[in-house]
Amino acid sequence: MTSPNYNCHFSIANIPFGVASSKCHQIQCATRLENNVVFLAELQRSGFFAGVSGLPNNVFEKPTLNEYAGLDKSVHRQVRAVLQETLKKTLPTAFTEDISAVTLYLPVSVGGFTDFSCSLHHVRNAGRAIINDPTPPPGFFHFPIAYNGRASTIVVSGTPIIRPHGHFYDLTASSEKKPIIYGPSRAMDYELEIGLIVGKKLDATQGLNAKDADEHIFGMVILNDWSSRDIQACEMKPLGPMNGKSFGTSISPWAVTLDALEPFKVPGPKPEVALASHLEDIPESSYDIGMKVEIITAGQASTVSESNNQHLYWSGRQMAAHLASVGADLQTGDILGTGTVSGPDDGTLGCLVEMTKAGNEPITLVDGSKRTQLQDGDVVRMTAVAGGAGSGVGFGECVGELKPAQRV
Amino acid sequence: MTSPNYNCHFSIANIPFGVASSKCHQIQCATRLENNVVFLAELQRSGFFAGVSGLPNNVFEKPTLNEYAGLDKSVHRQVRAVLQETLKKTLPTAFTEDISAVTLYLPVSVGGFTDFSCSLHHVRNAGRAIINDPTPPPGFFHFPIAYNGRASTIVVSGTPIIRPHGHFYDLTASSEKKPIIYGPSRAMDYELEIGLIVGKKLDATQGLNAKDADEHIFGMVILNDWSSRDIQACEMKPLGPMNGKSFGTSISPWAVTLDALEPFKVPGPKPEVALASHLEDIPESSYDIGMKVEIITAGQASTVSESNNQHLYWSGRQMAAHLASVGADLQTGDILGTGTVSGPDDGTLGCLVEMTKAGNEPITLVDGSKRTQLQDGDVVRMTAVAGGAGSGVGFGECVGELKPAQRV
Repeated sequence: MTSPNYNCHFSIANIPFGVASSKCHQIQCATRLENNVVFLAELQRSGFFAGVSGLPNNVFEKPTLNEYAGLDKSVHRQVRAVLQETLKKTLPTAFTEDISAVTLYLPVSVGGFTDFSCSLHHVRNAGRAIINDPTPPPGFFHFPIAYNGRASTIVVSGTPIIRPHGHFYDLTASSEKKPIIYGPSRAMDYELEIGLIVGKKLDATQGLNAKDADEHIFGMVILNDWSSRDIQACEMKPLGPMNGKSFGTSISPWAVTLDALEPFKVPGPKPEVALASHLEDIPESSYDIGMKVEIITAGQASTVSESNNQHLYWSGRQMAAHLASVGADLQTGDILGTGTVSGPDDGTLGCLVEMTKAGNEPITLVDGSKRTQLQDGDVVRMTAVAGGAGSGVGFGECVGELKPAQRV
Repeated sequence: MTSPNYNCHFSIANIPFGVASSKCHQIQCATRLENNVVFLAELQRSGFFAGVSGLPNNVFEKPTLNEYAGLDKSVHRQVRAVLQETLKKTLPTAFTEDISAVTLYLPVSVGGFTDFSCSLHHVRNAGRAIINDPTPPPGFFHFPIAYNGRASTIVVSGTPIIRPHGHFYDLTASSEKKPIIYGPSRAMDYELEIGLIVGKKLDATQGLNAKDADEHIFGMVILNDWSSRDIQACEMKPLGPMNGKSFGTSISPWAVTLDALEPFKVPGPKPEVALASHLEDIPESSYDIGMKVEIITAGQASTVSESNNQHLYWSGRQMAAHLASVGADLQTGDILGTGTVSGPDDGTLGCLVEMTKAGNEPITLVDGSKRTQLQDGDVVRMTAVAGGAGSGVGFGECVGELKPAQRV
């Protein structure tokens, strides 16, 4: 354990937080070093955190990270330092289990889920593909556009997603005006996103400047905003996405903290227009986080996209500040999604609707099969690593299989 | 107490549920008879509900109705019967306080808030006023269109609402193309709605037929979906309303149960198109609930609208069934808003944007002042009574004052 292994997502430089259980360890907060899951409630009971000021007793006993995530960053930093110090020396084997023997859970109880649209490339690509118009919405450069998603159907990586039923235009109908029918969606897609987990809460009407918002962001996860494009297309006007998204959203189980991501800060895009002061951000406003999407069919993984968080126009700090600016609160455990992380080039596109030009140009997988949309049994695996391979700070994976529609 | 007084909202025929406290009674679940608030945790401890099967001990001790609302309707009906029987005989004065001495709270902890658009009249009126096109959205007759609101900013009646800051088009600019600026909203409005409170939960992927959905609806409240029309107009394309709504939503404190509303069931509108089977509703699908909006300025109340729940095209059962159809769950305490309850005629319009034709035709209040939008200090009071005055089954009021913008 003394020579850190940086060739993995969860090196000593990471120290992510999640919720885990195993045969011998009841559900509690945990961290991970390489393939070892370390149970934090037990570590705390054994006195490892005795020197940390501001850490409540039994804070890790809970089946969610919420209480811990809501603490001040100064407490998080002390805990991180203790864990790095401890794990550098020796693995506390009594409180540790191999990842293969562990069940992982949603890291937080999610009160609110707000999904943004932060990638200019995604907006332009999707607009071009769907309505032949790459012009971003009028507000795009002024504030991060968003809608509220359904928090209760956020699930942890590994949970299957069932193809939803819904209303959509029957594009197979011979009539010129396509009728609206109800049935299993025929246009299933994924969206590659990052989810920011709100840490310390912000009260309503308190307001927040983007520059100060890191204090309220506990960490990040990979987020797959599964989307039914036909249901979405039928319902979006004028109130936005609802059932086309609300059947399920997957997140990776380990929250990677901003402290772990600090070395991977990079300059963000320059604003196209003058911003309201609460949206003005720090110079190094972005993070170098490489992201990959694979579609796994019959055991074979096809890499369909390699993107990067740097492609986003808006930062998580700006997302949080925009929400708060209207007088809304931020609750610990809220998740703010970045929207699809797409870049400018083919191969950096974060969803099938972009890659296939709205279904007009199928992609070919390594097994030779073609896709314009996901098929039942397809597994979508998303991974993310900060700073490139070998950094030792990764997100692990966010994986989910699309299951056939059920009669409901 | 032996001769019931039907000239009030809270007669023996009502028996609503809320959460209350007073100097001598700590926060707990409560009911109300006329102006008497009866504390239910104390009533249960005294054995009043001993004969009710399926009622957990201490279920009313909680500061929300969630645990109680999540029980089977058969339990709710027994409790209702005991309360009607008890209160007909005598008021349990040790557990009772006059409403004037009582503080009321949000009746439920709200996990999810989904706001629908169920009034064809509202859709047509708003469309005509804003974009000169009364055509409803393409999906309107096929399913109840909705978006997710912000659950965490739902507040109980009486809570002031602060005029929000946000981004909007500066309509005072001389340029033809109006610039987007950031500042206090200049177009504040209310929306008269009913909120349905989800009772017994429904698991994800379980599905639900509208005909069976009453089992999952605990009761109803009045809901004021405060809206900033300029922020909304700037952000709605393409993802729907967000900050234009998320600064605050008011609900009345007493949940009126479907059992109390049963005598006021009336036939609903006939569907314009054949519905998917899960949306097919019972014949008496609507309720006769009269609703009134007053704007109070300098102590003078101007009645600006009198509408009725019967004007809605979609029922609460259909709203719940639509949500569930995609595989989403319903959580106890979720609130489903009907959208603005507007009728076909002037005088039945549930928001200012309709009444003033998007700000073009000011309304005149009793004090002689005019409004195209709400002014700071305006108090909006909404009331609702089932079956007309004298029925004894009312909702009380949902009231809120618009306060000046704060520097955030």
